[in-house]
Amino acid sequence: MANLWLGQDAGSWCGDVDLGSYISGYIDGEGCFTVSISPRPKLLVGWEVRPSLSVSQNGDRAEVLLLIQQHFGCGRIRPDRSDRTVKWETRSLVPIRAAVIPHFRKYPLLSGKRRDFELFADICDRMARGDHLLRSGLLEIVRLVGGMNPSGKRGYPTDMVIQNLIKMKA
Amino acid sequence: MANLWLGQDAGSWCGDVDLGSYISGYIDGEGCFTVSISPRPKLLVGWEVRPSLSVSQNGDRAEVLLLIQQHFGCGRIRPDRSDRTVKWETRSLVPIRAAVIPHFRKYPLLSGKRRDFELFADICDRMARGDHLLRSGLLEIVRLVGGMNPSGKRGYPTDMVIQNLIKMKA
Repeated sequence: MANLWLGQDAGSWCGDVDLGSYISGYIDGEGCFTVSISPRPKLLVGWEVRPSLSVSQNGDRAEVLLLIQQHFGCGRIRPDRSDRTVKWETRSLVPIRAAVIPHFRKYPLLSGKRRDFELFADICDRMARGDHLLRSGLLEIVRLVGGMNPSGKRGYPTDMVIQNLIKMKA
Repeated sequence: MANLWLGQDAGSWCGDVDLGSYISGYIDGEGCFTVSISPRPKLLVGWEVRPSLSVSQNGDRAEVLLLIQQHFGCGRIRPDRSDRTVKWETRSLVPIRAAVIPHFRKYPLLSGKRRDFELFADICDRMARGDHLLRSGLLEIVRLVGGMNPSGKRGYPTDMVIQNLIKMKA
């Protein structure tokens, strides 16, 4: 798929582009690291934590999303119902930790979005340890989510979730 | 300025990032190649052609714009009056031909935006030859601008300019 651009005549199409650096630049501009906190009554702690990295693009030039999907080996591409864009998104902890986070350690973001990535990576590490399944660990995670920039959050307001968890403790 | 991120501890901040590739990725996502055609009664042909490359960014993370300005050695950074963004823009033919176009030949865009860049580069070459100062050359340039995607155009509608130039000829 990405071969549309890269396969046939890579020398001519890619020039001296280092793909890892290019993808970090693209995602620094267009990408969004988010962690959603949503109520899930069936879970013992009552809330579900979901990390996500997504990139949106006008539907008429979605080649780079295919390139990103191929590079990370994960995520889905689908039309965004709200507008005429297409979105690549990965929401699965295992490939995020195996492919996405190591990528941005090797090819760091150079804008302030790097702070969101660091919080995102910290939260994913905590989730891999199971912290999100215990009230105290979840409370810490929710506080970290509160430190991400507004576009980096999704779902319920941090304060509401914290109040809920504190009440649960009481 | 870019040293905020790159100077003090480049190894830790930049990892393996190849800056040229990173900037091409960033601009493939956030950048806009435009060619504006505006009426200028004082010019013999009556219209002025202005090429521009611009990149907008939320004001709270404009570090990458400083990096881009430093990399290309041209362009201005200023707040966009219409929203809370900051914009880097270069509109001067000489640095565009000396720095910007060679950059994207070396580190090509990988999305369909590449087509806009190729038209942009072609128009800049024609301007360097003075084509835009003669009606026949300007007509060709206006037709090329018409082939750029909607976000790549600025100023008056292509058809209106072409009709005006054809009338002038008659």
